[in-house]
Amino acid sequence: MLIIDGPQYCNWSEKIFRQMREGGASAIHVTISYHETFRETVYVMETWNRWFERYSDLIVPAKTAADVRKAQAEGRTAIVFGLQNPSSIEDDIDLVEILHTLGVRFMQLTYNNQSLLATGCYEAEDPGITRMGKQVIAEMNRVGMVIDMSHSAERSTFEAIDLSSRPITISHANPSSWHPALRNKSDELIAALTARGGMLGFSTYPHHLKDKSDCTLESYCTMIARTAERVGVDHLGLGSDLCQDQPDSVVEWMRNGRWSRERDYGEGTAASAGFPPQPSWFRDNRDFGVIAEGLAAVGFSGEEVAKIMGGNWLAFFEASFGPKS
Amino acid sequence: MLIIDGPQYCNWSEKIFRQMREGGASAIHVTISYHETFRETVYVMETWNRWFERYSDLIVPAKTAADVRKAQAEGRTAIVFGLQNPSSIEDDIDLVEILHTLGVRFMQLTYNNQSLLATGCYEAEDPGITRMGKQVIAEMNRVGMVIDMSHSAERSTFEAIDLSSRPITISHANPSSWHPALRNKSDELIAALTARGGMLGFSTYPHHLKDKSDCTLESYCTMIARTAERVGVDHLGLGSDLCQDQPDSVVEWMRNGRWSRERDYGEGTAASAGFPPQPSWFRDNRDFGVIAEGLAAVGFSGEEVAKIMGGNWLAFFEASFGPKS
Repeated sequence: MLIIDGPQYCNWSEKIFRQMREGGASAIHVTISYHETFRETVYVMETWNRWFERYSDLIVPAKTAADVRKAQAEGRTAIVFGLQNPSSIEDDIDLVEILHTLGVRFMQLTYNNQSLLATGCYEAEDPGITRMGKQVIAEMNRVGMVIDMSHSAERSTFEAIDLSSRPITISHANPSSWHPALRNKSDELIAALTARGGMLGFSTYPHHLKDKSDCTLESYCTMIARTAERVGVDHLGLGSDLCQDQPDSVVEWMRNGRWSRERDYGEGTAASAGFPPQPSWFRDNRDFGVIAEGLAAVGFSGEEVAKIMGGNWLAFFEASFGPKS
Repeated sequence: MLIIDGPQYCNWSEKIFRQMREGGASAIHVTISYHETFRETVYVMETWNRWFERYSDLIVPAKTAADVRKAQAEGRTAIVFGLQNPSSIEDDIDLVEILHTLGVRFMQLTYNNQSLLATGCYEAEDPGITRMGKQVIAEMNRVGMVIDMSHSAERSTFEAIDLSSRPITISHANPSSWHPALRNKSDELIAALTARGGMLGFSTYPHHLKDKSDCTLESYCTMIARTAERVGVDHLGLGSDLCQDQPDSVVEWMRNGRWSRERDYGEGTAASAGFPPQPSWFRDNRDFGVIAEGLAAVGFSGEEVAKIMGGNWLAFFEASFGPKS
């Protein structure tokens, strides 16, 4: 079975790359930037280039769906780059094409806060897509970079769905009707996203789960089944948001970047500021098979399980990662 | 006939791109940086990306010999990026691969002055390839970026030829035995270069020509014939160094960058500081046919003319622009 997940933002190591192989991951969408500038993002790419050289038996960079299929055939995991924030394009729209050439295939228009392009889900007001945001959506559509609204506010997300000439994604979030976290999404928004061909990736990040780290596999898979009943199975996939082996300083960077002098706790609290433990049924990349079994147990057919585990993402990559054919 | 030239550093415009087509240029190696930092070089690439979009009927970016052949078949001119200085990699060897991914296929290790990598031809002393220079040569060899020593001093150039595991180039210079300019090269150096499969591109920049702007076509082509008698015809090509339509402020930037508070006149003088006029037989890209006729007139066969006009560069591109096969 072809398995695709992401975004993930792990403390990458040979151990984790081997776990990807053990779990049968054909492709992982990895985050290479939260608040980094263009130059800082390039430094991260340089680090990945060294890993691609050193661990060439385990991982390989991917820019197309064909690269993912080739990786799977070779027994390697394809790595697809994504940005969780538009900070990497700074105020320069032409960096969209430059970053696309360097392999970036996903970019969030916001990360929690207002950006130059749109509004994040933590802002009090959401005035929608900005002037530059409209231009950047058109440019991302032109070159084939996927618009990701996982951390965006609702009005901005509805507008991005409408403004984009190509399907967009909410790569890592769950329905707020299942667990009312600020980062989860309304049924109306998920319906609008998928009706236009957009993909929803189901998160395993405990703050997005009912009962958090204690969430059961059955609850998670039943939530996916309820979503499929509403919007069909063709636009659903995994979006684990796995942040394995990271020190808590990393979640502090995600939440605070360089934008605040007061400490922001995001989905955590002062008393519980760090990364929460993963649910027992998805510790890391070795556990994709557990989720697949859980999906079958709640009634999905074999074909449906294969779509959710990776087939739908692959079809989306095929349609999204280059100029519109 | 397939025609390849470069480097060129023109004040690019639709007029010049149309002249490339009129002159039948299949590929032009264009300079995108003299003293620019990495970020500034990316700005130049962004400008080229806009030209590629706007003038897609005339020009197309090329990263491989196959791209050049495709461009020729489509009646467009392939554009290959080159750097005249290693300033674009700053002090970061991993930018070699990043810039290669973005399309850079040539990099000079020096531009007249001492660099982090090697010594330029205007320095009083040439201590040879530096510690970082040896590392960068190996990295350029690994990814498939051509080492260009046109503006380098002689010992550094001999050492680069020896240290490189792949053929290198002197992309734009002439034999100093014909015209003893500081930028021209000794017969011994040209012999060493070509004996290892390296390419010499013959310059049309007047400071590199006998009788400068008054140099005759016959003198130029006879100089090429004498060179071919010494080193064979297979490693010789065009390297016009055309700087069409540029204001004199550009040659001042080339010579002074940001490295000097005193004004350096390079190959010019205080009394004659600007760009010299091109020789009458190579005004611009429309005149490749004139050079081809001049080569035939001094006795080159049709096959030899085709090699010098582009065939040799194409074979060199084929062998040089990717990982070693």
